[in-house]
Amino acid sequence: MFLEKFPLETPFVIAGPCAVENRKQLFETARAVKEAGGHFLRGGAYKPRTSPHSFQGLGKKGLELLAEAGKLFNLKVVTEVMDTRDVEIVAEYADVLQIGSRNMQNFALLKEVGKSGHPVLLKRGMSATVREWLCAAEYIKAEGNHNIILCERGIRTFSDHTRNTLDLSVVPYIKKHSDLLIVVDPSHATGDSSLVIPMARAALAAGCDGLMLEVHPQPEKALCDGKQSLTLEQFTEFMAEIRSCVKEDANVS
Amino acid sequence: MFLEKFPLETPFVIAGPCAVENRKQLFETARAVKEAGGHFLRGGAYKPRTSPHSFQGLGKKGLELLAEAGKLFNLKVVTEVMDTRDVEIVAEYADVLQIGSRNMQNFALLKEVGKSGHPVLLKRGMSATVREWLCAAEYIKAEGNHNIILCERGIRTFSDHTRNTLDLSVVPYIKKHSDLLIVVDPSHATGDSSLVIPMARAALAAGCDGLMLEVHPQPEKALCDGKQSLTLEQFTEFMAEIRSCVKEDANVS
Amino acid sequence: MFLEKFPLETPFVIAGPCAVENRKQLFETARAVKEAGGHFLRGGAYKPRTSPHSFQGLGKKGLELLAEAGKLFNLKVVTEVMDTRDVEIVAEYADVLQIGSRNMQNFALLKEVGKSGHPVLLKRGMSATVREWLCAAEYIKAEGNHNIILCERGIRTFSDHTRNTLDLSVVPYIKKHSDLLIVVDPSHATGDSSLVIPMARAALAAGCDGLMLEVHPQPEKALCDGKQSLTLEQFTEFMAEIRSCVKEDANVS
Amino acid sequence: MFLEKFPLETPFVIAGPCAVENRKQLFETARAVKEAGGHFLRGGAYKPRTSPHSFQGLGKKGLELLAEAGKLFNLKVVTEVMDTRDVEIVAEYADVLQIGSRNMQNFALLKEVGKSGHPVLLKRGMSATVREWLCAAEYIKAEGNHNIILCERGIRTFSDHTRNTLDLSVVPYIKKHSDLLIVVDPSHATGDSSLVIPMARAALAAGCDGLMLEVHPQPEKALCDGKQSLTLEQFTEFMAEIRSCVKEDANVS
Repeated sequence: MFLEKFPLETPFVIAGPCAVENRKQLFETARAVKEAGGHFLRGGAYKPRTSPHSFQGLGKKGLELLAEAGKLFNLKVVTEVMDTRDVEIVAEYADVLQIGSRNMQNFALLKEVGKSGHPVLLKRGMSATVREWLCAAEYIKAEGNHNIILCERGIRTFSDHTRNTLDLSVVPYIKKHSDLLIVVDPSHATGDSSLVIPMARAALAAGCDGLMLEVHPQPEKALCDGKQSLTLEQFTEFMAEIRSCVKEDANVS
Repeated sequence: MFLEKFPLETPFVIAGPCAVENRKQLFETARAVKEAGGHFLRGGAYKPRTSPHSFQGLGKKGLELLAEAGKLFNLKVVTEVMDTRDVEIVAEYADVLQIGSRNMQNFALLKEVGKSGHPVLLKRGMSATVREWLCAAEYIKAEGNHNIILCERGIRTFSDHTRNTLDLSVVPYIKKHSDLLIVVDPSHATGDSSLVIPMARAALAAGCDGLMLEVHPQPEKALCDGKQSLTLEQFTEFMAEIRSCVKEDANVS
Repeated sequence: MFLEKFPLETPFVIAGPCAVENRKQLFETARAVKEAGGHFLRGGAYKPRTSPHSFQGLGKKGLELLAEAGKLFNLKVVTEVMDTRDVEIVAEYADVLQIGSRNMQNFALLKEVGKSGHPVLLKRGMSATVREWLCAAEYIKAEGNHNIILCERGIRTFSDHTRNTLDLSVVPYIKKHSDLLIVVDPSHATGDSSLVIPMARAALAAGCDGLMLEVHPQPEKALCDGKQSLTLEQFTEFMAEIRSCVKEDANVS
Repeated sequence: MFLEKFPLETPFVIAGPCAVENRKQLFETARAVKEAGGHFLRGGAYKPRTSPHSFQGLGKKGLELLAEAGKLFNLKVVTEVMDTRDVEIVAEYADVLQIGSRNMQNFALLKEVGKSGHPVLLKRGMSATVREWLCAAEYIKAEGNHNIILCERGIRTFSDHTRNTLDLSVVPYIKKHSDLLIVVDPSHATGDSSLVIPMARAALAAGCDGLMLEVHPQPEKALCDGKQSLTLEQFTEFMAEIRSCVKEDANVS
């Protein structure tokens, strides 16, 4: 169980910029995430980009900044690892290793993060069925590592008003058929910041264990995925909304 | 605006069996829908079935039963029309004319329901983009009929743990880009009664105006789509949950 | 069997403009189709258009022009019917009734063209499985009409370098599992005239019974789908290529 | 250009079993491939399998057998590499490094095979657009390696009569918009040996540079993907058909 590593309240919130760009951007975001009640800081140091000519991330420098920000603001750090040879170094700096959609069936990488013993956030592949996703998790479990969080981030369909199609039905399906945790990333799914909060609410209502949200101090200047990033203000306001709902539920029961 | 016809509280709930099978089944369901607080009775008299050898519905007899049940239990009636030549008779018995997914781009039918002046529930086609859906609504509007409710019921993708993929992101998208009402049908979308209520909650959280739910006194004996039907008890319990949430929201504001 | 109506050599070629625009455009095309060795003239009199504000076809006037051109150039005429109420009049002017993709599961219309006894060209729906397509053909057969030609015209997927994804594997699959004729429409599938001829060659190599091709005297001035139309010259040259291949095969065997 | 490495006649044929199972199976297949006129021997030593509990390939032993068979029968060897750490050893034994669909956007691996200088066969991802596929090739080119063969192997769609949907329109599209070689794999695309040869013919007619075919001495006993494998006899007969077509074309011109 994931909870062996960090006792977790649910719903938990993983937030941060798509990519670590510089100290100022990261620390400003991390402070806001912490003050708003977020639990994990996310940020990409190694970025999987469609084109080799796009910004590829800060690499090791990015990892150092993430670890420093995590320590300073008392946030666990989640970041993506893309190469078996990088698992060791990423595991040194991060608390949770993220496997991105494009690598959901990179079986060598799954085995290696399995061996690391670190908690793993396993994003669903863009065209993966639920069965294939759970089988990918099996690769991690087969190495003795059961600290797995699944992350639904949208699938590829013909539907073109959003970047991907958020398949929220996986949330109750996974809760019924598996004991893994599941979080939802409405930022990558929609690619449109105006849809992120309604879909985050829907994800919580469907019963997910947590959310993964992109937040940036200046979305319009982000080096990647600015269109889908919440501002610090939008994020803070939404976190207050979540807290009040959770409190209400507690009062009722 | 739809509200010109019937003043509507939101979220409103349209419920009933997939197909009208007989008086007992329909009236038992209608009573439960009314007692639980539902607003519309749905039921198919003309059924669009993949195979010509499957049950095709009761036809005119089904319309008569629907109208009688609607009157008895004071519920508005929603039912599907599939042929331009049937619009007149269906409009005589039903309050709202449903255009099914397979007919979303049956332009002759769209024009005819437009001319009828009756409110129209327009289901999204299985592979329709939002633009195509809104253009289909334009065909109805072009006849002077603005009483349109859009209904998201899942799209066709590779994802196979559900019958269709419920694309909930259309809810905030439509609310932002159109003034039409939008309801969500989690029954046809998931094809699995164990997923219907979580997805109905998600749909409400995403901001939809209403829900369309399949309810049957004995789902295991239904002539069609039994696997996705709620029992009367499940429906009643869920309606109580919705009412209490709406009340809470009212108290807060 | 389709051959009961017209003895057909295969592969047969159905060609013509997307829409009948005027006498000059239609007759110029029909003459070229005939001279190049085509067997059927196609052209839309009633056009299914996404938006009600796009050109909707010439209607009855279009049917009259088609029948006149068919007679003059000794070509059988294929045209689409979209409304049960129009089946009678379309059947009066056309030799083959086309059911478009959007109406593949318009069951009332399938029954009506079944009753007409006319040969039916049944296009695959944009998101129809092969099973659903064959079941749609069953609706026509159930009325005693076995004169059916299936037409693959591309399905809706995420793949965006073409308008639809031409699913050619249906050709050998249908030939193996059904006795219906199958033709391929690479014009609507690709939406790009530069891809039409290579895909037409591929369709023939896969074993289809015929082709459906859009041809226009001035594609750049077409009222619809100009981008995918072959010029008369391109069509004539391709027909010569087909004839020489067929002759070669005959010599070999 | 790929031709810098091995002067290639087109269409060229890459054939062999899905997985290297043992010496007898591989050598029997290799002999048949050579005698029938094939150019490359394919076979998996490292197998990407959905479940960790399925046969994972023979690993280094498989590479040794492939190299030995290639030498004995004078066939170039194509095999998949799945881990950046294995590129060196696979490059030692194989002539062409295959990147499988699941790794099309494994950017670390793309860079590493780019650095190897070996020719690379880059399969299209199951949900990759053509643009993403060409961008993946850019990652290889950016390391100075232009020896790239693209391989279309079917995309993931709702269409369920085949395992994947073979998107043959990429062939003329790639020939028009890129100078890379493109081959087609109808075995993985269809998952059904009865459809492989018709689709191989279609691929050649569409203009591809070569084919990749699964061949097995006893498909019904194959450790993986037996249903889509041709027998040695089917393969031999098809190769004779290709040769006679190519000869005919030569006579004509």
